[in-house]
Amino acid sequence: MAHSPITYKEAGVDISANTRWVGAIRSAMLSTFGPRVMNRDNAFAGLFRLDYDEQLFRRNYRKPVLIACADGVGTKVLLAIQTGRLDTIGIDLVAMNVNDLITCGGEPLFFLDYLGVSALNPKDLATVIDGIAAGCREAGCALLGGETAEMPDVYRPGDLDLAGFAVGVVELDRVVDGLRIKPGDQIVALPSSGVHSNGFTLVRKLIERQRAALDEYVDELGGPLGAALLRPTRIYVSAAAAVARAYPNTTAVTGMAHVTGGGLRENISRVLPHTCNAVIRKAAWTPPPVFAVIRRMGTSRAEMFKVFNMGIGFVFIVRPRFTDGVMNALRGAGEDPILIGEIQKGAARVILK
Amino acid sequence: MAHSPITYKEAGVDISANTRWVGAIRSAMLSTFGPRVMNRDNAFAGLFRLDYDEQLFRRNYRKPVLIACADGVGTKVLLAIQTGRLDTIGIDLVAMNVNDLITCGGEPLFFLDYLGVSALNPKDLATVIDGIAAGCREAGCALLGGETAEMPDVYRPGDLDLAGFAVGVVELDRVVDGLRIKPGDQIVALPSSGVHSNGFTLVRKLIERQRAALDEYVDELGGPLGAALLRPTRIYVSAAAAVARAYPNTTAVTGMAHVTGGGLRENISRVLPHTCNAVIRKAAWTPPPVFAVIRRMGTSRAEMFKVFNMGIGFVFIVRPRFTDGVMNALRGAGEDPILIGEIQKGAARVILK
Repeated sequence: MAHSPITYKEAGVDISANTRWVGAIRSAMLSTFGPRVMNRDNAFAGLFRLDYDEQLFRRNYRKPVLIACADGVGTKVLLAIQTGRLDTIGIDLVAMNVNDLITCGGEPLFFLDYLGVSALNPKDLATVIDGIAAGCREAGCALLGGETAEMPDVYRPGDLDLAGFAVGVVELDRVVDGLRIKPGDQIVALPSSGVHSNGFTLVRKLIERQRAALDEYVDELGGPLGAALLRPTRIYVSAAAAVARAYPNTTAVTGMAHVTGGGLRENISRVLPHTCNAVIRKAAWTPPPVFAVIRRMGTSRAEMFKVFNMGIGFVFIVRPRFTDGVMNALRGAGEDPILIGEIQKGAARVILK
Repeated sequence: MAHSPITYKEAGVDISANTRWVGAIRSAMLSTFGPRVMNRDNAFAGLFRLDYDEQLFRRNYRKPVLIACADGVGTKVLLAIQTGRLDTIGIDLVAMNVNDLITCGGEPLFFLDYLGVSALNPKDLATVIDGIAAGCREAGCALLGGETAEMPDVYRPGDLDLAGFAVGVVELDRVVDGLRIKPGDQIVALPSSGVHSNGFTLVRKLIERQRAALDEYVDELGGPLGAALLRPTRIYVSAAAAVARAYPNTTAVTGMAHVTGGGLRENISRVLPHTCNAVIRKAAWTPPPVFAVIRRMGTSRAEMFKVFNMGIGFVFIVRPRFTDGVMNALRGAGEDPILIGEIQKGAARVILK
């Protein structure tokens, strides 16, 4: 039964490479740090001060409520690996989390990531982390920490999975939870940039079945299909913040929804009271061309509305007397808001007309 | 090019099963909720009040600092799957995070999980989540949310990966960061329950090479090897809290370390100032028998000290005049603390004697 002793590295895990990698991500993290981050090398956990800057936090927050959520990017990461474009999947990861987080009416504070990989390829991982840091900067939150797990027996060579966690804060009296939504409220939508980060298991099956080329120029898309599919998920933090600044103490916004897997129907229904329906006019907007390309690869429009955002990434449900003001605030933030529907008496259903 | 349209379910993702699963985990989450959790069904994010209960929080925290960390359980999950014992891997997940978090001197507030799976098997996943909830109850934190990602093309059938994320709070003036550590400080250790959640890639390679049986009774272990390896990672939250209660306003504890991958050497060195060494007497304790069994499968004791905790799960670095008091506080919390070494002048190295 004698064997030569084996080491951890021979078993597939390189602790030294891991240590080097931890050093390499510091600059990405530092690019996201504001004055509230307590910068510490090599710590077991990240520290974030709530009340920096002479009690500014306490002036804004009398009854602070922490908001937290967790999300991944699904199998969009496989398409990113397949096409060798890992630079924006980190933006997707941040977007999927912070867009969920701001539906409560708060602001993001910090973000952490988890990367599961088969083996550390520092260059690829640095590309992913740089994307995460870029997303954090756009969302105004600190990349406070993360974990990279090297698991050659879970992930195939080259494969990886990403998960993210975001924490934010909202003043108790300003939590937006959908409970005040009532008939007559209007639904103001912000365009998505395309498929965002949901539905990629279906997209990839269609690509495989059609043997669709990912790198050939497609007129309709103004570029290759791969690039159109990988376009990063939009981050709606500054848009939502513009609305909150315009209406800090009113009840202008009664609900918000981030449109992810399950599409408009499933995601808007999450915030509807049991006594209200949301009625959406599909004619109010034109989905980006990538959805027409996906449909022609062999699925139905009805199925697509169940799986994809179909061009709408985020919605505000707004008291009708504030609709113009909210849309103006959004335009001031560089958005192109669309009035896509309204709330009616009903039973928490979303009706797509 | 005509194909019959395919749906998301045919592509491998079952949104309805996912919706059912989200419902099924609610009871596990509810078992962890204290009065600060704002309970909301079906929300995009979880909400946690900082100042519930008539400003109790504000009495305890004048300058609150949030603490956050992310971690997984490595390939311990593969051994859990292989032996069909998924009931405690969730405890490992919580432990890996909250033990990191409390090294800063704070208390955990809430936890979120990320599960990546090939396909939803509600029974197995409920077992995992029940373990996570049990870990959260032991750590005194709320399971505030999570994400289950169904990715048949990333994970093989039956496989899963787990990541966790913990948030806590510490008063600014009570952050423990190792900077006050000085020569003469003593090192008080808490026993581990065994391998905890690190080094499983090596353990699994040794098992495979030896074709070791996981389910046969081993005298030395008082049970099968599989059960000994899967024994859940200890959660040190109540032990650290007992020390904090005994010494709320002193500088008794100058550093803490959670002993994970990299062993005593790498983890204690993370908190040492550049002017200090930690000198550990290996004779001060006897590693649990599972480490002798692992060693006989074919690796060296030196290598094992680099990879495993070798019986020590958590250490406090303590001013010598408080050592007895800290050890008594730990005994009062049901612990069996061991004095394993001391701090000497040096260069941030950990010396195992």
